[in-house]
Amino acid sequence: MKITLAQLNPTIGDIRGNLHKALEAFRRAAQAGSDLVVFSELFLSGYPARDLLERPDFLGRIEAALEQIRQASTGFSETGMLIGAPVRSGRVTGRGLHNAALLFHAGRLVFTQHKSLLPNYDVFDEARYFDPAEAVATVAFRGERLGIVICEDSWTDPELHRGRAYSLDPVARLAAQGATLLINLSASPYQAGKEGQRLGILRAHARTYRVPAIMVNQVGGNDELVFDGRSACMGVNAEPVAVLDAFCEQELTLEINAHSAGSADVFSPREGVADVHDALVLGLGDYVRKCGFERVLLGLSGGIDSALVCCLAAAALGPENVLAVLMPSRYSSTGSIDDSVALAHNLGVRHTTIPIMPVYDSFIATLAPEFAHSAPDTTEENIQARIRGTLLMSLSNKFGHLLLTTGNKSEMAVGYCTLYGDMCGGLAVICDVPKTMVYALARYINRDREIIPESILTKAPSAELRPDQTDQDSLPPYDVLDRILEGYIDRACSLSELLSMGFDPQTVRWVIGAVDRNEYKRRQAAPGLKVTSKAFGMGRRMAIAACYGQETVITDFANGNDA
Amino acid sequence: MKITLAQLNPTIGDIRGNLHKALEAFRRAAQAGSDLVVFSELFLSGYPARDLLERPDFLGRIEAALEQIRQASTGFSETGMLIGAPVRSGRVTGRGLHNAALLFHAGRLVFTQHKSLLPNYDVFDEARYFDPAEAVATVAFRGERLGIVICEDSWTDPELHRGRAYSLDPVARLAAQGATLLINLSASPYQAGKEGQRLGILRAHARTYRVPAIMVNQVGGNDELVFDGRSACMGVNAEPVAVLDAFCEQELTLEINAHSAGSADVFSPREGVADVHDALVLGLGDYVRKCGFERVLLGLSGGIDSALVCCLAAAALGPENVLAVLMPSRYSSTGSIDDSVALAHNLGVRHTTIPIMPVYDSFIATLAPEFAHSAPDTTEENIQARIRGTLLMSLSNKFGHLLLTTGNKSEMAVGYCTLYGDMCGGLAVICDVPKTMVYALARYINRDREIIPESILTKAPSAELRPDQTDQDSLPPYDVLDRILEGYIDRACSLSELLSMGFDPQTVRWVIGAVDRNEYKRRQAAPGLKVTSKAFGMGRRMAIAACYGQETVITDFANGNDA
Repeated sequence: MKITLAQLNPTIGDIRGNLHKALEAFRRAAQAGSDLVVFSELFLSGYPARDLLERPDFLGRIEAALEQIRQASTGFSETGMLIGAPVRSGRVTGRGLHNAALLFHAGRLVFTQHKSLLPNYDVFDEARYFDPAEAVATVAFRGERLGIVICEDSWTDPELHRGRAYSLDPVARLAAQGATLLINLSASPYQAGKEGQRLGILRAHARTYRVPAIMVNQVGGNDELVFDGRSACMGVNAEPVAVLDAFCEQELTLEINAHSAGSADVFSPREGVADVHDALVLGLGDYVRKCGFERVLLGLSGGIDSALVCCLAAAALGPENVLAVLMPSRYSSTGSIDDSVALAHNLGVRHTTIPIMPVYDSFIATLAPEFAHSAPDTTEENIQARIRGTLLMSLSNKFGHLLLTTGNKSEMAVGYCTLYGDMCGGLAVICDVPKTMVYALARYINRDREIIPESILTKAPSAELRPDQTDQDSLPPYDVLDRILEGYIDRACSLSELLSMGFDPQTVRWVIGAVDRNEYKRRQAAPGLKVTSKAFGMGRRMAIAACYGQETVITDFANGNDA
Repeated sequence: MKITLAQLNPTIGDIRGNLHKALEAFRRAAQAGSDLVVFSELFLSGYPARDLLERPDFLGRIEAALEQIRQASTGFSETGMLIGAPVRSGRVTGRGLHNAALLFHAGRLVFTQHKSLLPNYDVFDEARYFDPAEAVATVAFRGERLGIVICEDSWTDPELHRGRAYSLDPVARLAAQGATLLINLSASPYQAGKEGQRLGILRAHARTYRVPAIMVNQVGGNDELVFDGRSACMGVNAEPVAVLDAFCEQELTLEINAHSAGSADVFSPREGVADVHDALVLGLGDYVRKCGFERVLLGLSGGIDSALVCCLAAAALGPENVLAVLMPSRYSSTGSIDDSVALAHNLGVRHTTIPIMPVYDSFIATLAPEFAHSAPDTTEENIQARIRGTLLMSLSNKFGHLLLTTGNKSEMAVGYCTLYGDMCGGLAVICDVPKTMVYALARYINRDREIIPESILTKAPSAELRPDQTDQDSLPPYDVLDRILEGYIDRACSLSELLSMGFDPQTVRWVIGAVDRNEYKRRQAAPGLKVTSKAFGMGRRMAIAACYGQETVITDFANGNDA
């Protein structure tokens, strides 16, 4: 049996475009003599389509697209198509909608399998939209007995869910029903280190049930989520027959039957930082393109965050589509300006310089009557950041470039950033990248030649909003900060657990307090690309007007910028 | 049997404060000779506690608070306490957590009932956190057989869910088990017109099962949600025994048994606009207080939106805690300035004036080299709005006042607002209030005397960002716009359904396109108070980088502000 794995990049809501992609791949697979072409989960709507799934008109247009697929399958009578789409159940209890895999063949809808396990944690909201499957069943196709599941249906190992288990294992049930080939349609987002888990699951199923296991995963960026593809086929010997490339569209046709064995050489794991880099490049490029933009702009401060984002943008869109804006103040070092110009030059990115001091002086003069009896504080620093935000948005408005935000996860976590200032922008490219990972990415970009000037990598990080300022005036050292944040945010550690890890109590209390206190800033942040196990954004839902109740105290670490 | 309905205002996450409130009410009820004091759903954590419910340390502190309640109940041996809290199940399948009602009496946890129906639509995410109850059971207490349910457990009428039904009816099951008294612990948020539904449900249960039905609802604002209280007791004759006041804390002790009948006179419905007004005042006040602020500021433009927000703020916090800021430009009419001063005077609110033209001219001069070959457009209008945003945030930062955003739902829907400009602020007070409702609220505020100057109510709305501008240069008439928006957003009508209602096709297409296209602005908006059936924010989750696929076209209506 020849199976085509169609690892493609759908756009959310673009039923017509996604249908077109599917039919083109169907045609190519048929021409290649394939028996079955397999697409990813919810391919017709794109994943996640979110509340579009609540609109009856949207679901009606999905049904019309499925009818077009059925009709097209008449013309390719040697080839079946297995595709994911939301399908109404016709029942009045529950949500009335299923996350379904539909098998079309020779003008007929041959088989439908609904998803059994609906992830409803972190970034996933599937219980909001779907009812679970009532049962699973195998289907005979071309001499094999297919066991079809959808994404989470395979993720039943409690280890993957902090020890929590599902009471159901759809793959085990299908194996018990005699499946000779397992096929999983997925929309499994990228996160650093997860690709090994995903292949591990496929491998475990092949080993446990002694059948080949195929997984077709979505690829592409959709708002906060980046899907890495890496579709795969695991042989009956639990070794990979094939692993498709990460972060790109790919179609691969394999000859597979119940006895196919894989060769261990197919899959060569790569450096983690390279993966994060490619995820960010894909997520950035897709966000810009799917929002209908061609070009981006960003502020280059001379610091490492904006340097990294500039490199990612140039890689995603081509340097000719990136505009770097230098906005020096009297607190900007000449090093920062020179480094920014050198970076733009190294990348071949256009740059322009707009000094902010005349506008700043004008703001200060305008506010002088109000501030007559007050000493300077972070207010004045925030004004600088907000002038820069306004200048960048003005260029964005005038020329139709999308503004990229350059803040990292460490500063976003503790609020070391200015709302409506450096937080301005359509996409916060690295807001899920901790500062220590920012350095690793910069070194990765410089692996062959110096693109980011070395001085940007070696100088002390500074917001340059007052004389001789450095980040470490206000923040703990980044290696300490990032480890505390990883514990508090990614692993939900308590204060006492963090203390038992040996961190300085005063530092831990300050970090926890700063994270909790700055929820209001993050609520108004631009969407950002998720690359860690717990990103700010749709996957972390916290109240603002709340008392988090940890015994936190304000210490001598200042609250970065912004009141 | 004497039952105390404790309608109180918990703070999210403030376990210690909420426990203190509960124990004080317990003590008062015991002193009043009450047999049972009933609190609202998830009272100890506050509702909604969101992802705090995923933190083991948080759940551990809840358990410690429940132990304190158990100990306290030893001292009030004549009085039981029925309170809502999240409770871990100890099971490894599912989420391992229940939304529970716990009955304490004389030093013992006598009975626990888990919630059966977990709302997971609109603003509700309960399937993210909780497992449903496996069963319901009645409990004998002081000669009655109590049937205890939690909020959604009573909302089983498919009419309430656009025709969708639950496959289970916990109240019917409890009635079948012989409950002589139904008690519902709720955290049911306010929305215009819903109070009638809530009492209707209680009435229907009393009528159907011929038992009195009690509901204790949370009161207070928690971020986007305002809880209106209005706890009630319906008699066996399906007439109200008592209805507690809306929008305030209240404790009421009633003598109730299985035969208690109500009197129809207790409940007098009030004008809808008064309710919306009071909901906004409570939501605003609680957001400010629970965020730890005392004072607010806002920009007064001379238009009706900021005038309304100023009145709401003065009502919520006292006029002495409100600072109104006038920021005229050369496009501001003298009428706008005079009207703003008159409003501040009428309210007794402090005001100050900060002209924006010097800063504006400085921005224009700074950007002149970049804009040399471009004609003026909305960019320059956005700069004015962003200068105002920066000035207001500077006052907020310097003096620690929380900034209120004044945009309404109609402009938020179609993007007629400037990101990082007039959208700046900690709370978007009226962002779920359509413009036509803004007028109704203004008239309500003026019902006894002219507080909002009449000219603000009668002049044509204008952003005053260019000469002789009015909103209707860019937008359809507000009465038409609001009806289209209500259809598209609140009722999820399709394009063709909207056309069949008789709206102008070009207008409908423009409105739909504008709503879809401006998702990116709303993603970065301040949280706002929900008062309609479908608010932007946590209850409406849409993708940004998406193609909504309605056959929308850009027509001669301009896209308000902002590119």
